[in-house]
This record gives sequence, structure tokens and C-alpha cells, in this order.
Amino acid sequence: MSASVEIICIGTELLIGKTLNTNAHWLAKRITTLGLNVRRITNTADDIDEISNILQKALQRKPHFIITTGGLGPTFDDKTLEGIAKGLRRKIKINDDALKMIEKTYSRYVEERLIDKIELTSPRVKMAKLPEGAMPLHNPIGTAPGVLIEHENTTIIALPGVPSEMEAIFEESIAPILKRAAGDATFFETSIYVTRVMESDIAPLIDQVMHNNPYVYIKSHPGHGGEERPRLELHLTTTAKDLTLAKNRVSKALIEITELVQLKGGKTKSPSKAKEV
Amino acid sequence: MSASVEIICIGTELLIGKTLNTNAHWLAKRITTLGLNVRRITNTADDIDEISNILQKALQRKPHFIITTGGLGPTFDDKTLEGIAKGLRRKIKINDDALKMIEKTYSRYVEERLIDKIELTSPRVKMAKLPEGAMPLHNPIGTAPGVLIEHENTTIIALPGVPSEMEAIFEESIAPILKRAAGDATFFETSIYVTRVMESDIAPLIDQVMHNNPYVYIKSHPGHGGEERPRLELHLTTTAKDLTLAKNRVSKALIEITELVQLKGGKTKSPSKAKEV
Repeated sequence: MSASVEIICIGTELLIGKTLNTNAHWLAKRITTLGLNVRRITNTADDIDEISNILQKALQRKPHFIITTGGLGPTFDDKTLEGIAKGLRRKIKINDDALKMIEKTYSRYVEERLIDKIELTSPRVKMAKLPEGAMPLHNPIGTAPGVLIEHENTTIIALPGVPSEMEAIFEESIAPILKRAAGDATFFETSIYVTRVMESDIAPLIDQVMHNNPYVYIKSHPGHGGEERPRLELHLTTTAKDLTLAKNRVSKALIEITELVQLKGGKTKSPSKAKEV
Repeated sequence: MSASVEIICIGTELLIGKTLNTNAHWLAKRITTLGLNVRRITNTADDIDEISNILQKALQRKPHFIITTGGLGPTFDDKTLEGIAKGLRRKIKINDDALKMIEKTYSRYVEERLIDKIELTSPRVKMAKLPEGAMPLHNPIGTAPGVLIEHENTTIIALPGVPSEMEAIFEESIAPILKRAAGDATFFETSIYVTRVMESDIAPLIDQVMHNNPYVYIKSHPGHGGEERPRLELHLTTTAKDLTLAKNRVSKALIEITELVQLKGGKTKSPSKAKEV
């Protein structure tokens, strides 16, 4: 069983369709590649009660990690840490290390003449108000620190919503922790593209190959236009304890599905060939 | 109170970061524009128990609509309707109207010489297996019908995952229903872009303007690089009972925030001017 992760993306902009959630996509890909298993991604509004409720429900499912994005900034609608504190029934208070990080960033802004002098105004101090017991994470790009909280057997990590900041904190502080939790688990994926056979005719072939290869997951992805332009992607994935085993598993299933598809009159292309077309 | 919607996106490809969830973004924008309020978006795997649990929890929050995407096709991993049936404790059985729709589509495929003859194989019939009491929705582009189920005071709508099919069924069958539920509610949004002031200095100004304009939501969106390149978008939104009222509300708040930002030494650009730059 690989280590499990839930992602909670916070921001009303996601619910009104203003912002496409590329953060969830980036995190899901990165976490999967590190060998962990993303179980659920929830998008919610800038609302303390919603954040608190979603966190509590997620904790009941006992994932190894819960990663949130968004809502760490200085404005009134940045409510993630209050929501997390409420969900954990912890107090929120100024964290000295976080305050030092923020002060250091603003002193850099003074050096760079972006601002005249460091004033730790209330919105700036707000970014240092963390749930009790939390640890701030260095933000190499922006101002608001990331936040890490251990709660029972789950590690809760709060990252900013600005993609460059989210990614920078993830790579610097989170990826090494996740990699350790994943142990030797390695994710491997490949695709073939199929034409001249309909998805509904491929369905029983996938069943058969997955039955013979219980550790490989095969999913068919029809192109736009569905079955009328029947170009299907068959995507094969596995997570195994090392890369050689993962590749061997996927290769065996790939050969089997390719043979069966060709017997049905289908034409197959490997991803590299497909790119040449 | 505008009518509420929850979106549930089903597909392991979303959790492994293979697919960017543009469906959720498209739906959220379209539903918001129609005057309804998207409360939550959940992404889950192709797993009957997960789908069932998420649906049951969503129903407890009593939204007017629950819209799912993905998992309606012919392959083993298309589990949405089984998940919904389990969540509602309804049986799943062949729906005659759905089967007729599917037969009609395949007879068109025969005419178009995509296939030789109509064979209602088990994977094809699978797409007609709906929870009891469900109504199939015509799919103008692909094969799998959409599905509509009334349950207590919530309307559950299942749409395919292929974006073109999802959008076509939404426009043909769902948008008119949502528009009726929204009544006269109208969404309006605008943005201004701010430079030369930091987000942390704008925070109290937003508080003040939102306090004076309780129906307008103002959210600041820092650009990439956070406060180091302080170009901020201020996004103003409201939902009101007609467009004139919505525009008046937003305009009043827009003038107030612009004046306050300029008093702080900020430079503001309207979106159209911003595009000219």
C-alpha cells in the first residue's frame, strides 16, 4: 500500500470558474511520480467552516498527508489557517519563526526599494498567525510561509495558491518528506494509441488483460468526438517497489493488450510513433 | 439565496495528474454565469464506494443540483452509475429509452461505415444500465447518454468525461433547467489591475470597501512571483436579481476601491486598458 494523500484546494475563484485549477494537476502528477497515491481532491470556497469541515472529514479517512493550496496571504479572504485551526480545535497565534521569515522578506523588499521601510502591519502579521504547534516553511519566492502540522498520523501541509510559490515550497520542503514516506515505491506509466476499433469493442480486452495483470491499471481515453472518431488512448500505469519491476509489469500488459487489439483489427501506435505523425 | 450546485468529477486520471480538470473549470464558469452558486468540487477515483460515499455526503448538504462528470462509458472503469445507484440505494437496470438512444447512435455508425453491423454487445448495453427512476439525456456527439435523477429535493445529473460530449449535453439539456432554477439571479464580474502597492497594503482597503458593499465580493489575485512583482488583480463579483442592479453594485464598489488604492499611491488599470498595454 503506497502512502496516501488528499489535496484540498481553497479559493472561491475555483468555484466561480475564474481560475483553472492547475495547482491540483501539478501536485497530483508530482505526488504520483514520487510514488504516493492521491485519493481525493476537493475544491472549496474561502470559508472557515467549509475548510474546517472538509479537513475533519479528510482526517477521518486517515491519509498520510493532507496538502492544501491557497488562502495563506494577507487579505481577509485568506482563511486557510483559521479553517485548519478550527478543524483541529487548536488556537491560532503568532509564530515567532514565521514572523522572522516575513520580516526578512520585507527587509529584502526594502533593499530592493519595492517599499520604503518595514512596517509589520496587521495584514502582514496575519501571515505569521499559525495554528499552535505548526511549523512554518520557507517561501523562496513570495511572502507567506508554507505551514506544516503533525496531527495524529497525518501530516497537514498548507501551501500558497500562487503556482510559482506553491511549487517552490513543495520542491524545497515537501518533496523530500513525501519521497521518504513513499519508500521504494515507484510509479511508471505508458500509453498506446488505437485506431479502427471502438472503445466498446476494446472494453472486454482491457478486462482480460487487467485480469491477467492485477498490478497494472489500464484506462481507455477516447479523443474528442467520442466514438465517431475512434482514436483511443490506452494508458497503462503501475506503482511497484522498484522501477525495473514496474517497467516489466507494464511491458507485459502492453504486449498483451497490443496483440488483442490487433487481432480485433485495430491499429496501434506507440506514443513516440504517434508524436511523429 | 441563489440555487446551489456541487460538482463531482470522477476519474483516476485526475488523481494521477494525467488530465487537467478543464471540465470542472468550464462547468463552474457556466453555472456561475447562469446565476447559480457552485459550493464544492470533488475529484475522485473510478471507485464505486468512493463515488457512493461522496454522493451521500453531498446529498446531506442538500444542494439543488449535483453534477457529475466522467465514468459513463463502456469500459470496466466507468463506474459512475453503479456508484450513484449504490449511494441512492437504488437498483441498476437497463433503461429502454437509453438503450434506444444507444442503438440509434450505433445505427448511425453503421451508416457512416464506422462499423459493419449493430451488435448490442455487453459493453454497449452497459451504457444503458441506469439507476431505477433515472432519465437518459440525449448525447448529440457521442454514445453514452447523460443521466438525470430526481432524489428528494436534489437533481442529480451525470455527464460524460469527454469535454465535447459533456458540454453538448449540458447546453442541450441542463442549461435550461439551471436557468429556470436560478430565476432572475444574474452574475456580474469585473477586474482592475493594480501596480505600485503591495497586496498586504491593499488588504485593509478591500475590507473597508466590502464592509460598505456587502453584496460585492472582492478578491485580490497576486501575479506569479507574489509581492516581488506587485501587479495585483482585484476581482469584483456579485449575483443580483437583475443585471442593472448587479452592474450598479459592482460599479459603486469599483469606484470606491479605485479611489482608495490611488490614495495609497497605487496605479490602477481597467481590464481593457490592461489589454492595450
